[in-house]
Amino acid sequence: MKFSVAARLAYEVRDRTAFILNIEAAELRNQKILSETLTMSPSVPLDRFETAGGTRLVRAVIEPGRFEVAYDAIVELAMHDADPTTLRETPVAELPLDVMTFLNPSRYCQSDQLARFAYREFGDLPPGHQRVTAICNWIYEHVDYLSGSSNSETSANDTMVQRAGVCRDFAHLGIAFCRSLGIPARFASSYAWQLEPPDFHAVFECYLDGAWYLFDPTRMAALQGLVRIGVGHDAADAAFATIYGNAEMTGMQVSIAPVDAVENSEPTIRAVGIA
Amino acid sequence: MKFSVAARLAYEVRDRTAFILNIEAAELRNQKILSETLTMSPSVPLDRFETAGGTRLVRAVIEPGRFEVAYDAIVELAMHDADPTTLRETPVAELPLDVMTFLNPSRYCQSDQLARFAYREFGDLPPGHQRVTAICNWIYEHVDYLSGSSNSETSANDTMVQRAGVCRDFAHLGIAFCRSLGIPARFASSYAWQLEPPDFHAVFECYLDGAWYLFDPTRMAALQGLVRIGVGHDAADAAFATIYGNAEMTGMQVSIAPVDAVENSEPTIRAVGIA
Amino acid sequence: MKFSVAARLAYEVRDRTAFILNIEAAELRNQKILSETLTMSPSVPLDRFETAGGTRLVRAVIEPGRFEVAYDAIVELAMHDADPTTLRETPVAELPLDVMTFLNPSRYCQSDQLARFAYREFGDLPPGHQRVTAICNWIYEHVDYLSGSSNSETSANDTMVQRAGVCRDFAHLGIAFCRSLGIPARFASSYAWQLEPPDFHAVFECYLDGAWYLFDPTRMAALQGLVRIGVGHDAADAAFATIYGNAEMTGMQVSIAPVDAVENSEPTIRAVGIA
Amino acid sequence: MKFSVAARLAYEVRDRTAFILNIEAAELRNQKILSETLTMSPSVPLDRFETAGGTRLVRAVIEPGRFEVAYDAIVELAMHDADPTTLRETPVAELPLDVMTFLNPSRYCQSDQLARFAYREFGDLPPGHQRVTAICNWIYEHVDYLSGSSNSETSANDTMVQRAGVCRDFAHLGIAFCRSLGIPARFASSYAWQLEPPDFHAVFECYLDGAWYLFDPTRMAALQGLVRIGVGHDAADAAFATIYGNAEMTGMQVSIAPVDAVENSEPTIRAVGIA
Repeated sequence: MKFSVAARLAYEVRDRTAFILNIEAAELRNQKILSETLTMSPSVPLDRFETAGGTRLVRAVIEPGRFEVAYDAIVELAMHDADPTTLRETPVAELPLDVMTFLNPSRYCQSDQLARFAYREFGDLPPGHQRVTAICNWIYEHVDYLSGSSNSETSANDTMVQRAGVCRDFAHLGIAFCRSLGIPARFASSYAWQLEPPDFHAVFECYLDGAWYLFDPTRMAALQGLVRIGVGHDAADAAFATIYGNAEMTGMQVSIAPVDAVENSEPTIRAVGIA
Repeated sequence: MKFSVAARLAYEVRDRTAFILNIEAAELRNQKILSETLTMSPSVPLDRFETAGGTRLVRAVIEPGRFEVAYDAIVELAMHDADPTTLRETPVAELPLDVMTFLNPSRYCQSDQLARFAYREFGDLPPGHQRVTAICNWIYEHVDYLSGSSNSETSANDTMVQRAGVCRDFAHLGIAFCRSLGIPARFASSYAWQLEPPDFHAVFECYLDGAWYLFDPTRMAALQGLVRIGVGHDAADAAFATIYGNAEMTGMQVSIAPVDAVENSEPTIRAVGIA
Repeated sequence: MKFSVAARLAYEVRDRTAFILNIEAAELRNQKILSETLTMSPSVPLDRFETAGGTRLVRAVIEPGRFEVAYDAIVELAMHDADPTTLRETPVAELPLDVMTFLNPSRYCQSDQLARFAYREFGDLPPGHQRVTAICNWIYEHVDYLSGSSNSETSANDTMVQRAGVCRDFAHLGIAFCRSLGIPARFASSYAWQLEPPDFHAVFECYLDGAWYLFDPTRMAALQGLVRIGVGHDAADAAFATIYGNAEMTGMQVSIAPVDAVENSEPTIRAVGIA
Repeated sequence: MKFSVAARLAYEVRDRTAFILNIEAAELRNQKILSETLTMSPSVPLDRFETAGGTRLVRAVIEPGRFEVAYDAIVELAMHDADPTTLRETPVAELPLDVMTFLNPSRYCQSDQLARFAYREFGDLPPGHQRVTAICNWIYEHVDYLSGSSNSETSANDTMVQRAGVCRDFAHLGIAFCRSLGIPARFASSYAWQLEPPDFHAVFECYLDGAWYLFDPTRMAALQGLVRIGVGHDAADAAFATIYGNAEMTGMQVSIAPVDAVENSEPTIRAVGIA
């Protein structure tokens, strides 16, 4: 399934500022970038970097004045549909060792401190994709989605106490629980089809049976329409813009739409991943 | 019902030390102290203070050497048995104003931060004694009682995340939830009949229908055999000994036993309070 | 010195709401209320309560509609001026026992966790009023006063990490440090002469040499012009309005002015208290 | 300079357990492993992984019984000595993009929340190696090194409040401050020459002027005798053993000694790095 994604960012730059942007679709196995353009005004030389996980960073150093960024791409998602009941958890003894870093606690996902809860609540459930779905259901049922209820410092522990948050908080809690249980989990920012209102969206991925599978405990987006941008340990690794200098954002627009006729899919009963 | 209670404390005092002791039975409406003796060795002049809530503090200033404290009392508990299904919550508009301080958050009971959870989990339950019982059941079922899993800095927020604690942590969580819901709640240290092994025990009390009623989310002691000692906002108000100086505890013994034949009571289906 | 103080509050009440108001000047030894009026519109019966510390609470239950409160008073402050260099700390062995509750940690003042820092930074200073002044100077120099940088959940620990706050955060940090060092300290809300812009103001008091002395680490108000309202362990005990129901504040005005010609005082070199 | 390092670990394995071990010297530019042996008893097949940063992980799955690990290596440190006064900070606009991940906050290093403090305390110091040294001096002077004062959950925020910790806490605080100031910083576990008693030791590295330089705010080890093992964002990335299963450690020995005559170096006035 092909999607057209776009982002427009505008800033008023007051002093010379270094921008680290992460708005381009990630290079992932089953996420193929068919075409893309990244335009900056003013036009400046760019530094580029791609992480081992496929996240693409761009750095631009901008002099005072107006700064505009436009990104447009056509991305094909060759999602791997699997019967979720067949997707088992991989024992730690068999996990690829490069995946094991996603078992560690991180800034916003204190899986070490939440381990007892995770075992009490989810430890006896049948392992596999269904257990992670149960985790997502728990989050959906026990945390209020409430704009403005959290901020950039809010972590999974805070959300556990305060029971309100936005998509990144939902993802952080899901990641923390999964890691507590020995399931590698990572954060993904994304262009999210059917998200209303359109915005960057945070979801998470778990490593199950040899591949990463997507989960969205907010239930706000369609799993088969998530074009991932930044993939990392948590939101600290996936900001769409990090600003070193003095600049104010004056505008942002994000969009995603299917390019062709929409396939008649039934995503909720299928596991969606990037096997 | 009458109980004989006793405490023995021993310290090695290295420098001149002020002890604030809170081991005497509190002066409460339905807790009558029939006889008592407090002996200190060496014998020193004591300063005494009783809080508005009936907690009795003793201060002794001790020179270096061995320091021993012995307390023995016969206490009659004229517990008020009520049918729990009839005990309603008092609307804030009708609460005695001196009780309202027990709606405020305190050091170990962040009822402000736990409010959303409390409303989500307990907000729709029928108000009254039964709702507090539901809170105690929730704590019993969702937190592990585990010696050594917490310390003197552990608060209700920590217990909410880590899901393990001892009696004081169970009490703090219960107090926090009740205050979140508008139910005045206070902490009580106690001599606890049937507690094994014998020790000081922490429980909590809620103000319901004009009286304070006892709750023990650990289910470790018999509610009708709790001789309360220190009553306050939380454990910060009810330490059995606070030491200003340099002294080490070398021994502690606590005991409680019924004086007469035990009445054939059925506490679990009755609300126990001090109306 | 006499002051005229006034407060005006306005609310839009949506459902029947119980208001607990704490805007009247406290009954304190050297704070004499010469005259006062409290008017509510609509006029309703009031419940009144005065804490052991002199804080005066009023409860009003208001039906839906507009609710307005007006308080006006003339208050005489017979401040006790003392030479700060003579004001010693009272050893715990000699403290009045009713004052000892202000050594305990509270919701916003984790004096237990901050003790090592307090001893490291202030432990070797000469004890007494001058040490508390040193604490206030430290806070003034190490924390930014920044509106909007904190909220109702912010505690002394948070301020220690984040180094920004408003008057209540400055007071909480001062209280925590003092308690850590064995100096009883309490929170006071107040009408504050010379505060710009006019607002309720938070300061703190320490018990030194037999009396409570005022401190304002923000340096924003004149110590001899503080008409105290709510006195308690911390901000949890001194909200000017606590609302149980559904109401929105639509207006607030606070003012204070000296009634007579201003005396030519030199507050900065004198300790100000209510001996 | 050449060092002989050794580690001996012993476990009692109760159920089949997967061990992830990180005790081998890292593969770093100026840390050359001349020879090494890793022996396990029982001997089992090993899985190996080396991170992008040079950290080497080994996985062994062990059946119940006694499990012993022995590691011995000769490592040559070709340290880059530089005049610290010449080592500047690299502007973000010029940092290698793969280094930028070490500007992000992590589990134990909340550089986002500590930023205001870092700027207030260190923001006006001359940037470069000397500023990081000033940070280390501040930590050394303001935090007590105290065994048992922290645990595996302790983070930089906690240490900021409680002012006590061990080597990993000192390193976490240094890392957090550096990241707050825009200086990439990473955690390193190590064999540490002259550390008494011998143990694994935690230090940190900053990226300055094109290379990583070592810092030890505990001042317990000699910088030119640090054989690094695990390099990562913080201690979450560098545990010497992570155990998935049921096993108890029954013994551990760590040692490091220079192979040749010790050079007469003056490390304290030179920056030591791995340029």
